[in-house]
Order: sequence, then structure tokens, then C-alpha cells
Amino acid sequence: MQGVLAGALSLVLRHPIALTVAGRTDAGVHATGQVAHADFPPAPDLGDFSDFSGLIRRLARLLPPDVRVLAIRCVPPEFDARFGALRRHYAYRVADQPWGVPPLRRFDTLAWPRPLDEDAMNDAARRLLGEHDFIAFCRRREGASTVRCLQALQWRREPDGVLSAHVSADAFCHNMVRSLVGALLAVGDGRRPTAWPATLLASDRRSSEVTVAPAHGLTLIGVDYPPDDQLAARATLTRAPRRPPPF
Amino acid sequence: MQGVLAGALSLVLRHPIALTVAGRTDAGVHATGQVAHADFPPAPDLGDFSDFSGLIRRLARLLPPDVRVLAIRCVPPEFDARFGALRRHYAYRVADQPWGVPPLRRFDTLAWPRPLDEDAMNDAARRLLGEHDFIAFCRRREGASTVRCLQALQWRREPDGVLSAHVSADAFCHNMVRSLVGALLAVGDGRRPTAWPATLLASDRRSSEVTVAPAHGLTLIGVDYPPDDQLAARATLTRAPRRPPPF
Repeated sequence: MQGVLAGALSLVLRHPIALTVAGRTDAGVHATGQVAHADFPPAPDLGDFSDFSGLIRRLARLLPPDVRVLAIRCVPPEFDARFGALRRHYAYRVADQPWGVPPLRRFDTLAWPRPLDEDAMNDAARRLLGEHDFIAFCRRREGASTVRCLQALQWRREPDGVLSAHVSADAFCHNMVRSLVGALLAVGDGRRPTAWPATLLASDRRSSEVTVAPAHGLTLIGVDYPPDDQLAARATLTRAPRRPPPF
Repeated sequence: MQGVLAGALSLVLRHPIALTVAGRTDAGVHATGQVAHADFPPAPDLGDFSDFSGLIRRLARLLPPDVRVLAIRCVPPEFDARFGALRRHYAYRVADQPWGVPPLRRFDTLAWPRPLDEDAMNDAARRLLGEHDFIAFCRRREGASTVRCLQALQWRREPDGVLSAHVSADAFCHNMVRSLVGALLAVGDGRRPTAWPATLLASDRRSSEVTVAPAHGLTLIGVDYPPDDQLAARATLTRAPRRPPPF
């Protein structure tokens, strides 16, 4: 997505554009609430596209149908889509009905062959909340911290019968949401006790017992930022002690 | 859909099954609320599938991912999915945002290149309600009546910004919903006045001025039936004066 969008923007603006995105997504993961920032060329070079709705319309004609730019706005120079994000929100959709996945949502919903106990999954999820070293649920990257603050992890039934998780944290390490979902699915269909996922928080390495849930059920649905007038303070805070980039 | 499902049912039940569906859909039209009836073989031949959830699960494994059976139930012998239906409900989704169609809903949403005035479209729609000869909006079939009672036709903005029509009638003639939508889109983007679609009701032939909206924006979302204890009366009522089959 990032490369495709940067290419389309560069073409329209006739200027090489580099994008910084809030949450990188693995192949197959969807995003309805992705945020990115870019430095645009100086205003005189914007040509006909100083009106962002014109630019958005032009991008819609250039981009493949699975990539769309919903809004563009000017931000203070301190805004950083990646380092400035306070919180990322993901959704994971699983269909456990005997009849399978709703056909029109089969592209962003995992089919699960057995009924899932959402109460057990929510019990297990609650024990994971808070700041922990999530290394058991992370694919290790050189030098990257695996200490994260999990702020929300809740399953609910959608009107179409699908079980949907809302997962929020300050940042996620690689594969973390899909690993958490994989562990909770094992609880949901009775293969593991409710207390099991939380016991993995004591681990000092990636757990081989956790199955990473498939990518296509996962969607990045939103990213939170501080108000514009607090951006400068936030930029100082997150950049000063140079730490590996969170996503 | 009808043939694929009848084939899967015949295979599982080891007995030729003929399906009668409530609303036939043109190629490309979706259905989330289709209803069909079939005569099953006598109970002893049902084998392991006297439990319908087992049958539903088995069908989910046999059917292509765009066809799913959500529920099966026994009905009185008088039940007829086609002739017994009181009302059909359709939805038509159109995206008129400058950024285009929400990627995950692009399979059931039409992209419209200009902003649509939903108030004008609703004004025009209200004038079409009631019993009329909708021949201007129908692809003629030999001997089929084009007099229909249009009970609802209302546009509203969905949370994702898409403009969605809810259209209900006792039955629809061929291409009727897509033709009504096509006429209202011409009002919505200002090419026709609000009063125009209703003037076509005076026509005695199909109007060449009405563009049939593309199939993929249309979804059959539901079919209403009388309560089981009134089915017999309804069957007598609709079958006695032999008339061409409504859909």
C-alpha cells in the first residue's frame, strides 16, 4: 500500500514523495483507518491540486480499487504519523457459525470450524491488559522493544453473527495482534484453559505454542494522535531517548 | 446460485432436489436475504442430516465461498417461497465521495463520479410510491404484469458515507429496481428534475431514457411471508386466478 500510494502521489504532484505510515501492515492485513504523513512540494508546485478534494479524486482514478485516500489535511511540522501516534486500534473478525463466513465479508473475516466461547475469550483477554513484555506474542526484530501497553482487547458479536475483537495498544510489536488472537481462539474452542494466554507473559522468548492467526481477518481501524497544540511536546518526548520505532 | 445450491443439496441428500426461490437475481446481483423452498426426501433418507445444523455445515464445505445457507427450517406444505411472498426488500449502494468506493465493500457498491443530492432523490422517490404500472421501468416479459405496489423507496447515508436505497414492493418486474435507481441517480446528480421519474409512470412502454443501474450495487436483503397459520389462505388467494409469476 505504502509504495503504491507514494508512487501515485509522486506522479500527480510531479515530485518524489516519501510516506511515513502509522502502522505497517503485513501482506493480507487490511486497513480502514491508516494514517500517513508526507512532505509536499512547496505550494506553487501543487498546480491544480491545492484543493485536496481534487487531489483525492485524481488519486482515486490512479490507485488500484483496494487502496483509497479518504482525507488529506495540512498538519503542523511536528506531526509524525508513526512516532506521534498515541494509540493504534485493530479489529479481528472470525466467523464461527456452522454456515461459515458471510459471503460479502469473506475477504476480511476468518472462517473458524468450531463454535467459539466469547465469554471465555473475554476472560482470557482481560488478564492480558496493561503493560507487559509481550515477547511470547512477538516476532523478534533486532533491537526492538517488546514491552507494550495493551489498553483494550474485547470480543463481541456483530449483527451479522461474526465474532469481532477490538484491540488497542500504544504500539504493537510484529505479529502481536495476530498472535494474541491465535492464543484466544485456542481458549475459545476449548483447547486451552482461560488462564493460559496470560501465563505466557512470563516467558522470555517467543512461544512456539501460539499460532499466529491468518492475516486476512485483521484490519487496522484507527490511530489516535494528540491535539495539534500538543504535537511539539509529544515529538520531543518520543524522539529524545532514541528508541526503536514502535508500530 | 439456484443451480449451485440445488446441486449441493442433491449431492448431500442423495436425491434430486428442485429449489423454488423467492426472488430471482440477475448475474452480478447479490442476495443476503434470499429464501427458497424444496421438497426433501422422506425422513429416513436424510441419513445423518436430520439435524439441520449438520446439513448447513456440510453445505458450507461443498458450496463456493460466495454461496452460503444461513438457516433451514421445516414449513407447512402450503409454504411457497415464490408465490407466498408478501414483500421483497432490496438495497442499492452508491458511493459518491470524491475518494470513491470503500475498498472492502467495492463488490456490492457502485462508484458514482459526481456528488449526489439525496434530498432530491428522496423527493423524486416519494412520488413513485403506491400501485402503478411500472412498465417504463421494466424489461418486458411475455405475458407478465408490470403493475406493482411500490411500498418503500428511501435513500440514506450509511456510516461509511455510502448512499444506500431501501426498496420494497409486493413484487418487482424484471430490471425494475435497477431502472428506478438509474432514474433517481439522474435526479441526484442534477441531470433530471425531481419530478421526472414520476412522469414516466404515464408511459405505456419501457422508457429508453432510463439507464439501468449496474447489477453489482444491488442486493436482495429480505422477503416477507405471512405467519404459518395464514399460508393456506394466501396460497389459495395467489394461485386461484392464474397469473404470471411475480418476483
